[in-house]
This record gives sequence, C-alpha cells and structure tokens, in this order.
Amino acid sequence: MIDDTIVAVATAVGKSGVGIVRVSGKSAIHIVNKVFRSSSGKSLLDLRSNTINYGFVERENKIIDEVLVSLFRGPKSYTGEDVVEINCHGGPIPIKLTMELLLTFDCRLAEPGEFTRRAFLNGRIDLSQAEGIMDIISAKTDLSLDAATKQVLGKLSSMINELNESIISSLALIEATIDYPDEVFESIDVDTISNSLNDVINELNNLLLTAKTGKILRDGIKTTIVGKPNVGKSSLLNSLLEQQRAIVTDIPGTTRDILEEQISINGVPLVLVDTAGIRETDDVVERIGVERSKSAINESNLVLFVLDGSKEWEEYDQKILELIKGKKVIILINKLDLPQMMDINIIANKTGVENIINVSIEKNINLEELKNEIFSMYEISDIEDQTMNTMITNLRHEKAIKDAVKNLMEAIENIEAGMPLDIVAIDIKDAWENLGKVSGSSLNKNIVDEIFSRFCLGK
Amino acid sequence: MIDDTIVAVATAVGKSGVGIVRVSGKSAIHIVNKVFRSSSGKSLLDLRSNTINYGFVERENKIIDEVLVSLFRGPKSYTGEDVVEINCHGGPIPIKLTMELLLTFDCRLAEPGEFTRRAFLNGRIDLSQAEGIMDIISAKTDLSLDAATKQVLGKLSSMINELNESIISSLALIEATIDYPDEVFESIDVDTISNSLNDVINELNNLLLTAKTGKILRDGIKTTIVGKPNVGKSSLLNSLLEQQRAIVTDIPGTTRDILEEQISINGVPLVLVDTAGIRETDDVVERIGVERSKSAINESNLVLFVLDGSKEWEEYDQKILELIKGKKVIILINKLDLPQMMDINIIANKTGVENIINVSIEKNINLEELKNEIFSMYEISDIEDQTMNTMITNLRHEKAIKDAVKNLMEAIENIEAGMPLDIVAIDIKDAWENLGKVSGSSLNKNIVDEIFSRFCLGK
Repeated sequence: MIDDTIVAVATAVGKSGVGIVRVSGKSAIHIVNKVFRSSSGKSLLDLRSNTINYGFVERENKIIDEVLVSLFRGPKSYTGEDVVEINCHGGPIPIKLTMELLLTFDCRLAEPGEFTRRAFLNGRIDLSQAEGIMDIISAKTDLSLDAATKQVLGKLSSMINELNESIISSLALIEATIDYPDEVFESIDVDTISNSLNDVINELNNLLLTAKTGKILRDGIKTTIVGKPNVGKSSLLNSLLEQQRAIVTDIPGTTRDILEEQISINGVPLVLVDTAGIRETDDVVERIGVERSKSAINESNLVLFVLDGSKEWEEYDQKILELIKGKKVIILINKLDLPQMMDINIIANKTGVENIINVSIEKNINLEELKNEIFSMYEISDIEDQTMNTMITNLRHEKAIKDAVKNLMEAIENIEAGMPLDIVAIDIKDAWENLGKVSGSSLNKNIVDEIFSRFCLGK
Repeated sequence: MIDDTIVAVATAVGKSGVGIVRVSGKSAIHIVNKVFRSSSGKSLLDLRSNTINYGFVERENKIIDEVLVSLFRGPKSYTGEDVVEINCHGGPIPIKLTMELLLTFDCRLAEPGEFTRRAFLNGRIDLSQAEGIMDIISAKTDLSLDAATKQVLGKLSSMINELNESIISSLALIEATIDYPDEVFESIDVDTISNSLNDVINELNNLLLTAKTGKILRDGIKTTIVGKPNVGKSSLLNSLLEQQRAIVTDIPGTTRDILEEQISINGVPLVLVDTAGIRETDDVVERIGVERSKSAINESNLVLFVLDGSKEWEEYDQKILELIKGKKVIILINKLDLPQMMDINIIANKTGVENIINVSIEKNINLEELKNEIFSMYEISDIEDQTMNTMITNLRHEKAIKDAVKNLMEAIENIEAGMPLDIVAIDIKDAWENLGKVSGSSLNKNIVDEIFSRFCLGK
C-alpha cells in the first residue's frame, strides 16, 4: 500500500516559459492547498478534477510565484493517485523555492521514474507500457516514437496477454488431468494441446522477427565515421544531418543540442559516436588518440570509413583499416567528382570489405546508395510494413519471449515423448511466467525497481 | 490588431516528464482541435475554459503522442487570446513532431517573448510587468525573485501611474490657463503646482534610492576570484557555494548546472565570472592566459584577490595586482591557521586596497567578514527593509525615472522664474512621457520589440 506523497520537477530545467512541479499521493491536494492561494478564493479541496486554476504559491503570506495549478483526482490520473501539477514560471529559482516549500510538508522527493512506477503498481499500466513511456521520451526518430507509442497504448501487452491466456488454457487442461486422473479427462488429447502451444510459438516467433528492427529503432545504430584528415568526414556528417537540420532550425531551441549527434535515415536512427572530434579537427584519431578511437570504434555497430578517391591508398588508411577490423564497415570512396586514383575492386581486395560505394559527398552523388546499403545490411528494407504491426523494441522483452518459446518447445517435446504430465506442466508454467515478465506481472520487486531507476526524474 | 496564431515550446527541452507546446491566437483552439482526439470523444470547441483534457495528438489517424490539452479561452488567458497548451511527453521527438504538425496549419512559430508581448499589446499587463516576468525566469536568488514578483504584480506600475496622474493634474491646470488666459484661472497658483511637482520628485527620488540594490538583485555582482595557484581559490568557491549546494543536491536535476556559477550571499547574487578555470587548474591566469584573464576581470564588478598568508608577497602576486588595478577589490589573506608571513598593513600599503581580511577558508575563519565587507561595499546592509518596498531593478526604468525627475525640476525652476506657461507645460509633458516609458504606454514599437526580443522562446 502506497501511502506517502511524492514531489518532483517534471519538466527539463532551464530558462523557459514554464516549469512544472508534480505532486502525487494521498496528501497531494492537501499539501498543495497549504501553499496555493487561488485567485478565485476557492480552496483546492473544493475544485473539480481536470481543472486549471490561477493563483499564487505563497510562503508565510509572501508570494513565491504566480502559477497555474492543475488538479487530477485519483484514480483518473497519471499515477492513479491524486495528482497536482504546479505550473511555475520556468526559471530555476521559482521552481527551487516551490520545491523547497512543498518539502517542508509531509511529502518527499520522488525517485527517478517513481510517478510511472506508481501508475504500474496501481494497475493503471503494465510494465511494458511503462517502459514505452520512457522510450517515447528517449525516442530518436519518428519511427522510434511510433513503436514506443504503440507500446504505451498496450498493443504488445494485449497480444502477450492473449497468448498467455491460451497457455493458461492448456495448463488448466493438463492440471485437471493431473489432479483428477480418473475423471473425465483421463486420456488427454495430446494433439490439441501441442497444436495450441504450437500456435502460440508461431505467434511469438513472428513477434521475435520484429526484434532486430525494433531494437534498432529504439537504440539506434551506433555509428563511427573514420578516415584520415580532409577526406570529407565532416561534410558527410553535415550532409547526413542536413535534412533534419532544416527542420530543427525551423524550431529553434527545441531539439538542436540533443539531436546533434543523431541522424535519422528514413526514420532509422544512426547514433554517431564521438562526432565532436570530427567537427573540431576533422581528425578523430589524431585528436583523441588511437586508444580512445579504438574504444569509440568498439562501441559502435557500424563504421563508415571515408577514403579520398582522388589520392592513392596510404599508410594512414592502412592504420585505420587495422583499427576497424572485425566491425561492420561501409567504405565510402569520396571525391568521385575528381580524377580517381582508387579502384573499387582493388580497395575491396585490400580491405576485405564488401560494402564499398563511390560517392561525392560535396556534389551529393550516390549518397542515396549509402542509405540503401545500411538498410540492406540491417535487413530493414521492410521497415514500413514492420512498423504497422506490434514490435518488440526492448531487449528485456525479447529475452523473456525467447525463454517462453524455449519452454513451450520443451513442453511439446515432452508431451509428444509421453513424459509425465507434471513435467510438462512445469514447462508450460515457466513459459507463462516468462511471458508475464513482459507485462511485469511475474517480476520480482528488485527487478521492477531496477527498471524504473533508469527512468528520468519527474516521470 | 493581432490576427495570426503563434506556437512555441514553452518548457526547456531535454529528456523529462513533460514538455509543453503552447498555441495562442484567434485560431488556436480550432487548429489544436484538428490534431487532438480527446478520449472523451468531445471536440475541443465544446470543452470548457480552464479544463485539462486527456487524449492523443494524431497525424492522419496515426498517434504521435499521448497528451493532456489545457484550454484557456481569451480574454482570461496568459496572452488575453485563446490559448491551448499541449502537454506532451518530455522527449525531443514527440515535441518536435507535434510542433511540425501544428505548423502545417494556419499558424507560425512564435518569436522570443511573443506570448508575453501579446499580453502587453492586449492590455493584460504593462511593460514593467512583462519585464518582471522575464526577471522571474532569470532570477538568481530568492530576493531577486521577490523583487521580480512584486514587479509582475504591478507594484511599480501602480506607484508610477499614481504619480503620473498627479503630473497630469498639474499639466491640466497649466494648460487650462494657457488655453483660457482670461478665464477663472487668470492667476495660476505657482506654489500649488510646484509643491505638487515637488511631492512627485520626492517620491521618485525615494524610488531611485532603491535602484542600486535593485539592480544588484536583478543582475548580480559579477565577481572574479583571482590569485596564484594553491592559495585556496577553489576552496573559497566551494565554501561560498556550500550552503546553497546543500539545498541544490536535495533536488537533483533542478538547478545544479544553472546555478553552478552563481552564489547567493544572504539573497544577494554573486555571479562568478570564469569559474571553470578555478575548478580545472586552480589557476585562471595560467589556463586562460593574461589577455583573457584581463577581460574576465574587466567584465566583473568585484574582484576577490586571494593571497597565501603563510608565504611572502611574490612577483606573481604583483603581476595579478597589476591586472586588477582600478577594480573594486577585496583581498583575502588566506591560511590564517598557519604561521603568518604577511602583515595586513604592509599588504594595504603595497596594494592600495582598503578592504583586506585575514581568513582561513579551510577552517572557516572570518568568512562571515567577507559577506559583511561585500554588503557594506555595495551599501546593501538594509536589504531586508528595501525589499519590503517597491524597488527599481531595471536600468531602463531607472533612466526613465531620472529623466522624469530632471524634467520636473526644470519645470519648477521655470515656473518659479516666471517663464511662460507653455514652456513649463513642455517640461511637464516630457516628465509624463518619460514616466510612461516604465509602463510602456509612451514607448515606440521598435523599442518595445527590442525589449521583448531579449525574452526567451515560448514565453
């Protein structure tokens, strides 16, 4: 039973129009009522749910800030409890003083993700929906957002729940046979059960097929751009960023800094590792040193290796080639607009890299090829189709589903091998438990705590 | 007549719980209604003012985000127009997509401060109140916030308006005499008018007395800490920050980064110039070079020069002394807990600095003296009393009031010298116009535009 009241700043902090202080819990309305004087003269206790009320936050009759207070009475609120949001002016001091004032009453600072955790504990949403909320906040592209939103709306949950009900039916049938061996169920229909479990397996396997793309959408493809100085690395970065920049500069202050190192290729996020170096000196290796370059490369899933096609292959190129050994690599032979000194086949032989494209970054020649190459490399050509359906985007969910499939396959094997039904029941129960991890129904408190601890504060 | 609709992000951007997209103008409700599907099924057009409504932002039936939409029908709204606020999840992508979607309709991106400018143009607030709103957002300490809040509540405006009415009465009397020289007013009572104007001057002069402290509260005292390496500069910084840190760490994520270089001394803000150097190397001069140190010092209003009292005066100290010539300086002879090699009188003679304190930063000896020294240096000992009253915090207001005082003094001089009344009337009219600049009633559009352009986006 949750009986304390929590408070946190729900917006990012900076000099901005509005900053929100969020309060949730049994005493939320009561506590805010102590510091809020509405201009209408009405007490918060008497105001209706889902209303916004103008007034002042006051400490000992001294006005701290002019605010709007939103009231949400539980259970129809974000957390399922009474929630009050105080919209302060966006500066750090009004928010800080309002927080400090609230904390003198019977409430405490919320932990990261604690509002969402309460929504989960109060049964408003399940765990995969809660995780989806965090994925919305961290979404890197419109397609990642779309996948996250579907998850929040419970598409994954309802699919998993349906499958789990089918599993439970099979389990019930088996358990009845175990409990009452001499009753009507004396000879259990092996085929019915294994067919039913097979259907579940097929659906889960279909879902698992989306995991690869789903995880790319959620986490992005970590990408490093390498190459010796002046081959065009920063031009490549700018060219990839260009389309998105056009949008971003239209909305100053919204996303610039945050997306600076992320690129959306038709909705697929590339997360650029260590681009700072590219901008500053156009020479990552020299600037950050071989060791750190190595670790940046190791961290990444994809390396874009830029060569200068108007020059011969050099020792420096060779040095970089050694650094990127064993990684997924696309080589871009740049400066196609100049007389070419590099041959694509010779470079292929020399490097052992299959994916090589002649491009002119400056003249925008063949850059579309790069996109296609990345898509085919990651088998995400059917991304539009995939995002129409329910997807798995989360490693935790993938693992749980994979485990459940394994349990179900074992169950079928055992049932068909004529093993005792109580053995089969254990497999099926394990499958049910593993699937239940997706919605969080069968997770222990520590794991749940750990998941929410990765959320941001105020959510 | 304002007839377009504007939109902007009203919160700071970052991964956070909530981000607000604000729309204001004639079509605000209509436009948001096109992208918002309320879960209740009701149209925004039918919903009541000051309600918050749960639902979804959708583009072509595809959900972009799960949102809460707040509705404020004009004229009872921030801008005086219809205002709709969309509370998205706080990540950059949901906010960006929502913004982009709205901008496909008949609205445009708001300029910085444009919402508040509309509040001003629509007569909801005057210019000094609008400036107060920005001061709340930028407030550096609780006392700065207090002064800004009073300004927003219109304390300064109503005082100025009252005085301006008194000026208008005098003017009316004089103008009546000019227009109808042979009528009842044939001999104007010089004493009455000059007494009345004198009363106004006295009130304005009292107000001007608050300007010094007011501006310090608003802008802070720009302070540089200098001294050779290892004299205790970073310890001083930490010690000054300590009290405030204690609060700030209680509220993680709220104010840390932003206040990092600001210190509150009993509510008086010190803004530390170039503290990064102090933290990194404890040697500003060495790290950033003499030229940049000079410019950091030039930028500042106050220099805290830290010496190591356990050592002799050195060439390095002398070099620093030359850099800070002509500035307000407080010398701290540190390490009072060690055997002393420096004498306060000798240092006074050597440096010509009057304000010298023996301290031990590490042992926290005499640091209270530093606070007192700063307060007496800036004549802000009576700060608590001052903040009880209406204050001037803004250079623009101070200038307007000073000009008005000058006009009024000239008027009295002329009236007493028996100058023609139409000359006197001009002075009085000028005074009235100058005072009107505080509320913005007598400012031209360009100046108003310039003032609002310094506001933040989304306010």
